[in-house]
Amino acid sequence: MSPPKISDSAVRRLSHYLRFLDQFEMEGRFTVSSEDLAAAGGMTPAQIRKDLSHFGSFGKRGLGYPVAELRARLSAILGLDRSWRVCLVGAGRLGAALQQYDGFRRRGFEIVAVFDTDPKKVGRRWGPLTVEDVAAMDRAVASRAIEIGIVTTPAGGAQESADRLARAGVRAILNFAPVAIEAPAGVTVRDVDLVVELESLSYALTRDRG
Amino acid sequence: MSPPKISDSAVRRLSHYLRFLDQFEMEGRFTVSSEDLAAAGGMTPAQIRKDLSHFGSFGKRGLGYPVAELRARLSAILGLDRSWRVCLVGAGRLGAALQQYDGFRRRGFEIVAVFDTDPKKVGRRWGPLTVEDVAAMDRAVASRAIEIGIVTTPAGGAQESADRLARAGVRAILNFAPVAIEAPAGVTVRDVDLVVELESLSYALTRDRG
Repeated sequence: MSPPKISDSAVRRLSHYLRFLDQFEMEGRFTVSSEDLAAAGGMTPAQIRKDLSHFGSFGKRGLGYPVAELRARLSAILGLDRSWRVCLVGAGRLGAALQQYDGFRRRGFEIVAVFDTDPKKVGRRWGPLTVEDVAAMDRAVASRAIEIGIVTTPAGGAQESADRLARAGVRAILNFAPVAIEAPAGVTVRDVDLVVELESLSYALTRDRG
Repeated sequence: MSPPKISDSAVRRLSHYLRFLDQFEMEGRFTVSSEDLAAAGGMTPAQIRKDLSHFGSFGKRGLGYPVAELRARLSAILGLDRSWRVCLVGAGRLGAALQQYDGFRRRGFEIVAVFDTDPKKVGRRWGPLTVEDVAAMDRAVASRAIEIGIVTTPAGGAQESADRLARAGVRAILNFAPVAIEAPAGVTVRDVDLVVELESLSYALTRDRG
């Protein structure tokens, strides 16, 4: 059964709940209340009960949610009960940082290929991988069953990279290039704009001082 | 006059509008309609008119917004009519990627110091900077007028880094460590969780297939 469609921001909240549940599980707790989750995440208990109610009933009123069961259920909803094969486009520093980023592997996102257009980079060892030419992308995506692409090219190469990934058969793209890209048909794209995050801080500091 | 307080998500939208205005300005356009902005950003024209109405009146009905004026006004609201001195805590790969990330400098965010606890890293050249011991943070933040800190340490060191930054006088922190940190008093914190972004893609792919 397909889970109900929920908003982007609700999906993000589920990710955060999962993080808190990991923490509670590490602390050896068996049950957790919506108030505990709310305290961990700066949300209201009502919001949490509403978000979780979309996915069936968990636990019993007054006893809280069973940590392990809720954790397993949220993992499955987020597609984390399996692993995902991921490739990078752009063998630069940001790509290298993501490649060694522990958080991805821990959740089952495995980076199995890295592509670049620069002939000086192609063929080089790159951690456990070798940088491949973007021209090899079609075959690599098919043979290695890659489903997610991460774009870390400069702004100028981002749209072309996304289009290539889509042609090669990738169905979801995370874009770190400092430019919004248009999603090719049938592909889900998320733009991560690192500057937007800093701008929300400069806004806050400017207001404080106003 | 202090700008009105608006929600986090509205601040993010302003950042995006600014990005589109940059684009329109590069294309040599003098005016832009809320429909043009909506088309660029996947929002509704009504949302855009509402967001911009918080900050006074721009342009004339039927003529669209004047690009240069709106751009200057949004820049000022976001605190981008000045530069910001930023330090990094964590001289790893992610730090290196951010240090060379063009988008920051272009918006006036200048990384002027990098700190680490690892004696093997302290004293090393690091692009245009030299890695400094975290023990030197207090003096560096004061003497270089650093207002924003970026944490790129492993999860274990994140909270301590944030607390140190706060003691040193930094007033806003962008946290890339894969753990939520508690904001010290008087400090604004944004957590950037790179895994949450990937999880929203695995959710989408799982649903498609459900």
